[in-house]
Amino acid sequence: MPAKARTKTKVKKKAKYATAESMAKAQRSISISEFFAKNRHLLGFDNPRKALLTTVKEAVDNALDACEEAGILPEVAVEIDQLDETHFKVAVQDNGPGIVKKQIPSIFGQLLYGSKFHRLRMSRGQQGIGISAAGMYGLLTTGRPVRIISRTSKRSKAHCYEVQIDTKKNRPDIVHDEQIEWDASHGTRVEIELEAKYQRGKQSVDDYLMQTAIANPHVAFTYRAPDERQETYPAAVRQLPAIPKSIRPHPHGIELGVLIKMLQDARGKSVRQFLTGDFSRVSPRVANEIIETSGIRKNARAVGLSGSDAKAIYNAIQETKILAPATNCVVPIGEDQLFRGLKTVMDAAFYTAATRRPAVYRGNPFIIEVALAYGKPEKKDPSDPDAPPAQAKVARPEPDQPQSLARVMRFANRVPLQYQPGACAITKAVTKMNWRGYGLTQSRGALPSGDLTIIVHMASVWVPFTSESKEAVASYPEILKEIRLALQECGRRLGTHIRKAVRIKQELKKRSYIEKYIPAIGEALRDILDLKERQVTKVCANLKDVLERSRKF
Amino acid sequence: MPAKARTKTKVKKKAKYATAESMAKAQRSISISEFFAKNRHLLGFDNPRKALLTTVKEAVDNALDACEEAGILPEVAVEIDQLDETHFKVAVQDNGPGIVKKQIPSIFGQLLYGSKFHRLRMSRGQQGIGISAAGMYGLLTTGRPVRIISRTSKRSKAHCYEVQIDTKKNRPDIVHDEQIEWDASHGTRVEIELEAKYQRGKQSVDDYLMQTAIANPHVAFTYRAPDERQETYPAAVRQLPAIPKSIRPHPHGIELGVLIKMLQDARGKSVRQFLTGDFSRVSPRVANEIIETSGIRKNARAVGLSGSDAKAIYNAIQETKILAPATNCVVPIGEDQLFRGLKTVMDAAFYTAATRRPAVYRGNPFIIEVALAYGKPEKKDPSDPDAPPAQAKVARPEPDQPQSLARVMRFANRVPLQYQPGACAITKAVTKMNWRGYGLTQSRGALPSGDLTIIVHMASVWVPFTSESKEAVASYPEILKEIRLALQECGRRLGTHIRKAVRIKQELKKRSYIEKYIPAIGEALRDILDLKERQVTKVCANLKDVLERSRKF
Repeated sequence: MPAKARTKTKVKKKAKYATAESMAKAQRSISISEFFAKNRHLLGFDNPRKALLTTVKEAVDNALDACEEAGILPEVAVEIDQLDETHFKVAVQDNGPGIVKKQIPSIFGQLLYGSKFHRLRMSRGQQGIGISAAGMYGLLTTGRPVRIISRTSKRSKAHCYEVQIDTKKNRPDIVHDEQIEWDASHGTRVEIELEAKYQRGKQSVDDYLMQTAIANPHVAFTYRAPDERQETYPAAVRQLPAIPKSIRPHPHGIELGVLIKMLQDARGKSVRQFLTGDFSRVSPRVANEIIETSGIRKNARAVGLSGSDAKAIYNAIQETKILAPATNCVVPIGEDQLFRGLKTVMDAAFYTAATRRPAVYRGNPFIIEVALAYGKPEKKDPSDPDAPPAQAKVARPEPDQPQSLARVMRFANRVPLQYQPGACAITKAVTKMNWRGYGLTQSRGALPSGDLTIIVHMASVWVPFTSESKEAVASYPEILKEIRLALQECGRRLGTHIRKAVRIKQELKKRSYIEKYIPAIGEALRDILDLKERQVTKVCANLKDVLERSRKF
Repeated sequence: MPAKARTKTKVKKKAKYATAESMAKAQRSISISEFFAKNRHLLGFDNPRKALLTTVKEAVDNALDACEEAGILPEVAVEIDQLDETHFKVAVQDNGPGIVKKQIPSIFGQLLYGSKFHRLRMSRGQQGIGISAAGMYGLLTTGRPVRIISRTSKRSKAHCYEVQIDTKKNRPDIVHDEQIEWDASHGTRVEIELEAKYQRGKQSVDDYLMQTAIANPHVAFTYRAPDERQETYPAAVRQLPAIPKSIRPHPHGIELGVLIKMLQDARGKSVRQFLTGDFSRVSPRVANEIIETSGIRKNARAVGLSGSDAKAIYNAIQETKILAPATNCVVPIGEDQLFRGLKTVMDAAFYTAATRRPAVYRGNPFIIEVALAYGKPEKKDPSDPDAPPAQAKVARPEPDQPQSLARVMRFANRVPLQYQPGACAITKAVTKMNWRGYGLTQSRGALPSGDLTIIVHMASVWVPFTSESKEAVASYPEILKEIRLALQECGRRLGTHIRKAVRIKQELKKRSYIEKYIPAIGEALRDILDLKERQVTKVCANLKDVLERSRKF
């Protein structure tokens, strides 16, 4: 069939190179869910083990945010069931305010949907991606939808949905929709089936829950692992953290293009009203100063300003002194609570913590906190009722092993960060510090060695993560600086402790020498000088006294 | 006014805690452009210096992709003008096929829009984000739109657009739209004004262009830096790389949920038609085998299969032997071209390169290539016409400095990666290798030391980057393994060279000893044994011969 063969060749040749027209036909929109389905490692679903952790984490983040916003002390249950060799079911249930029926499908079946993105206020979730991404991963790997039960009050019934994301449209697809009886009076339960792998140890769900308990001592967790092991982390304090307030953006954090956009959107407002109304820390006096510096008309309307007017305002803002942003939008864990959290999961000889004053990067307020736990604890009475349960403790190296590297626990808005330490500003700040100055050993560019745990917490209205999976904090210079200062504050106290411990150790050593050898010297003197027992005792006491006071010995 | 005061308190109290209903009111969709505007560091716009590089890079990526797809040898001009202290204008012009008028606004004013996402074929761009993100950054920081001139052929006029992204809707907003005269017969020119910083050296635009020239010896670049410096990189080869072919997905890379979705979309097809038509490497014989193993009806339709049927097919696919994916969708640079590229920008005493055979991760074919340049070159005749121009050379450490670490150049689909080396699979593979085995010095977990440049290139239909800014390759085990094997192949050759060089050095040293001392020995022997001049010469020749052969000396 030579005719057919010829056609084939022709088609092939034609298809070899593209033209502007053939390329145009291939152009089209990509839905955000298609994008993330293909790039799932950006969301923390690189491999089955990490997928399990990420799923638990996103569900717990949401549960805690909801409870706290509603003023409810969180009680969260995490249950993981193994369905077969590679498949698991994750269930996370909270006692929060529940979710209004109409919102459930979008919250769990649409990426970039939520209440936290458009406000400036500290919360664990910020992007409106996490839980629907977990649901999408579950759907991709098992074909199963997300199951949600939610109840908003005793007066209303619970509602059960099964939802799956339509990746081509980034829209929820409701598979099942039913009113049900539920024994909880309010709260939400999410169930996701997914391909996963369970393994204990570092970067595990167990490790994540232990760290979450440290940074959230007001939360009560129960946890059922896939191996049927049950664990409980009772709340260490019975009080909610302060509720952070939403703020408006600070003028010094705004870029020219953003300002132009905001001006265009300020329909019906004068520039003065726009400045005082749409920004934080702009009083009428400050607004007048900005307008005067900019040289624009006093009563100019915001809409309809020319580009050069906008630029004049922008420049005037940079030149005007404006109070730093309010910081009640950010709530630290606090030194006291960090102590308590740390003590419940880790025994040490020395603890210290420091909370820095609020600072600002790119207009966003943030607070850095650091806590250290150092050294082996003195032996405890096993019947001590205050002693924490043993199973929750962090494994420590055996005493005869060489010194291991310090352990760094990173937190952002009370959430432990488990992956990508190398990409994180926190790790960078810790390794760049000179810990030798505080009595520790440290190789160049490495973590310090020793029996040391370092906790660093960044609280902010907007934590700049290096990827959507929220595993590492981006290295803004202001953030690095604050971490360094907090580490130095704790480091100095640690240095004092270590030097004191070294002195005490030397002192004890000296004493033991004295106790050991003085009686022998006494006996020798008795024989040589022919002393009486009474004289020997006196001489020995004298000697001991002199030697103990001696700095040379 | 106690009444007013009371109201205030009441309102405050009411507003303190949220309810399910108040939270519901705050829930809403977030546009992808709002998301990335707030998270611009994810796209490579963390700081002004990086923003300049990212903008140039995205524009050059698009220019090269377009030219190659259209079968045109790329000629690209990069021009950067400094407008004031912090503002720059970037212009990138190519001789490509141009862009159809209707497509221009979306390509430059909408995130997640493009032709490359939905196909499986190697290209520089893959996400449909880059150039519109650069335009968005420009808009945010300067308020200025992107300017595009494009012409598709001599017969049609050029078109000039000014486009800016509407971040709330992720849609282009056309500011200016005009037919113009343009001296180029076809091609595209993009101009973006942005807040930026220009600085030469590592991670600069200059460095990026030099590296791009190495990996793309078929491209001719002209570059005008902000300081008016002109540079040209002429094309080192006058032939386009082979055009990669699009492929269909491979069955072994498909997950259960994705398979279910694909089955639902296969309207009007039997399962057999679906398997042979929608996948690569599934012949009718293989399709029959899958259907038989799965136990479903032979003529079953794809749409309407139950979940358990789909799972049966999924399991059957895993059990069936299927040919590895076709690999003409991925085109390596090739050892020969890597050599040429490397030699044009770097003098060394030793070069080697290796291109691995194609491999597969998560169903995606990829190829790893490695090239090494080692040691200082022998002195060249400055009048040598083949000598490359000096200004393009990489700076080398002064000879009396201690050994510096090896330089690693990372490439993905011919694009140099400049940031986040620590997060990249390539760096991981290089530092994990034992380079001491090849005669180099290396600290544990660090790069090897010495006068060594390592080039690693990953070519794939889908490079898994660790963030949207495409700066580092994610560490899939299959990718790490291939990089290691390629490094070992080059490393072994380098080892042979180094050992040979060491032997030659020792040999020369030995010779110099022999030449120096044998005449003296000859004279001594003459005096002692009273030899004649002839005898002395003979003895000396004998001695020299014996000593030169001796391995002990």
